[in-house]
Amino acid sequence: MSEAQPTSAMVVIGDEILSGRTRDSNMHHLAQVLTEAGAPLREVRVVADEREEIVAAVRELAGKYDHVFTSGGIGPTHDDITAEAVAAAFDTPISVRDDARAILLAHYGDPEKLTEARLRMARIPDGAELIANPISGAPGFKLRNVHVMAGVPIIFNAMVESLRPTLRGGPKMLSHAFRIPVAEGDIAGPLSALAEAHPAISFGSYPFYQGGYGSTVVARSTDPEALAAAADGLRAMCGALGAKDVTELPPV
Amino acid sequence: MSEAQPTSAMVVIGDEILSGRTRDSNMHHLAQVLTEAGAPLREVRVVADEREEIVAAVRELAGKYDHVFTSGGIGPTHDDITAEAVAAAFDTPISVRDDARAILLAHYGDPEKLTEARLRMARIPDGAELIANPISGAPGFKLRNVHVMAGVPIIFNAMVESLRPTLRGGPKMLSHAFRIPVAEGDIAGPLSALAEAHPAISFGSYPFYQGGYGSTVVARSTDPEALAAAADGLRAMCGALGAKDVTELPPV
Repeated sequence: MSEAQPTSAMVVIGDEILSGRTRDSNMHHLAQVLTEAGAPLREVRVVADEREEIVAAVRELAGKYDHVFTSGGIGPTHDDITAEAVAAAFDTPISVRDDARAILLAHYGDPEKLTEARLRMARIPDGAELIANPISGAPGFKLRNVHVMAGVPIIFNAMVESLRPTLRGGPKMLSHAFRIPVAEGDIAGPLSALAEAHPAISFGSYPFYQGGYGSTVVARSTDPEALAAAADGLRAMCGALGAKDVTELPPV
Repeated sequence: MSEAQPTSAMVVIGDEILSGRTRDSNMHHLAQVLTEAGAPLREVRVVADEREEIVAAVRELAGKYDHVFTSGGIGPTHDDITAEAVAAAFDTPISVRDDARAILLAHYGDPEKLTEARLRMARIPDGAELIANPISGAPGFKLRNVHVMAGVPIIFNAMVESLRPTLRGGPKMLSHAFRIPVAEGDIAGPLSALAEAHPAISFGSYPFYQGGYGSTVVARSTDPEALAAAADGLRAMCGALGAKDVTELPPV
């Protein structure tokens, strides 16, 4: 990495992911958004819906990374404990806040619909900023560097859009990928040499199998010129290996 | 939980997952297998392809859970550092082992194809047991309670099948799910009462949106009789709420 980028981490609160009932999509979406924003995701933890697990993960990741994002556990039912756990992670009081209650009231229209259960969704830690939820009203919040968001993917994605303009991103990480129909075992030697010749570039190699073995080689850098030089090196490598039908996915 | 089950955790070594280039499927597959085996997944960490991150995650999770499973980073290229990192986590020497080299030789047929890069895949920590890879030869391994497996999904899945008979599972966790077309805010109250009346059951509620709000309520227990009683309670709750078109996914 030639220039510093802020770093991000995510905590997925998800018994339903851990049981295999649901396949994660929020992590995948956030990873793409944060790569785009120049604040790349460096670690994800998926933890159970248990208070001490959420508290420990939030506390540790908030101390280690610039931004933390959580997904799940902020609805109205008894197993929705994320807001309390995040408040506890920072020893911050939490209670029903007037601004959040007003948002729920505006969403539901009728005060009778603002049941005790739904009012749980207006519980916001002291000092937290609200994160808008244009889908279902109940807001997320940001406490220090931790962004607390819903688990339902359409709501999670909408909250990410609400946040996007505020993300302090660094220079964007560019990546240039080569899909090469040559097995990793035959690429490893020349690729190591290339990595030594381009120390500013991060090279990753990801095998695939599609009728035969192949390797997707990805070069990453925030510096477009260094990346272009690395791409030239990869093309020369493919030529030397006699690789045909190489597909390039140029930097985006 | 009425009976003890062994617990599992997973470490996904995956720059490509963290960058959003690839959507995870190994975690989802392993979660289902471990739920089925009665050794449920309790935590997942997705970490970057960096030695100190892998060492720290493996060391911490191996001390906290009965089984740990890793995915990714055991190929032949310079960024494949998982085997070394797992060995380092347990201060165990690692070198090319004869049994692993013989497997690779049998797979590739020709000793000339056993390049220095491919021989990296025969590096196995002292004392580790090999995990069979019927797809591409190069074995995974088990060191203490940590199972080290490939990241390519077809190979990961095949290694999981190799392991499955050896998994020490407890009583199987049964779950009975109700898909209820009623918003969580209207279910939360009666569901809390039900959770109090059935303390041996773990109830989870997962909202969905499909033309309108609904809730998937899942009751979990290793005890079939307690679960049947909880399901009766959920049916009564749906009746009292006037919920129509409730879909049940009975215990499997």
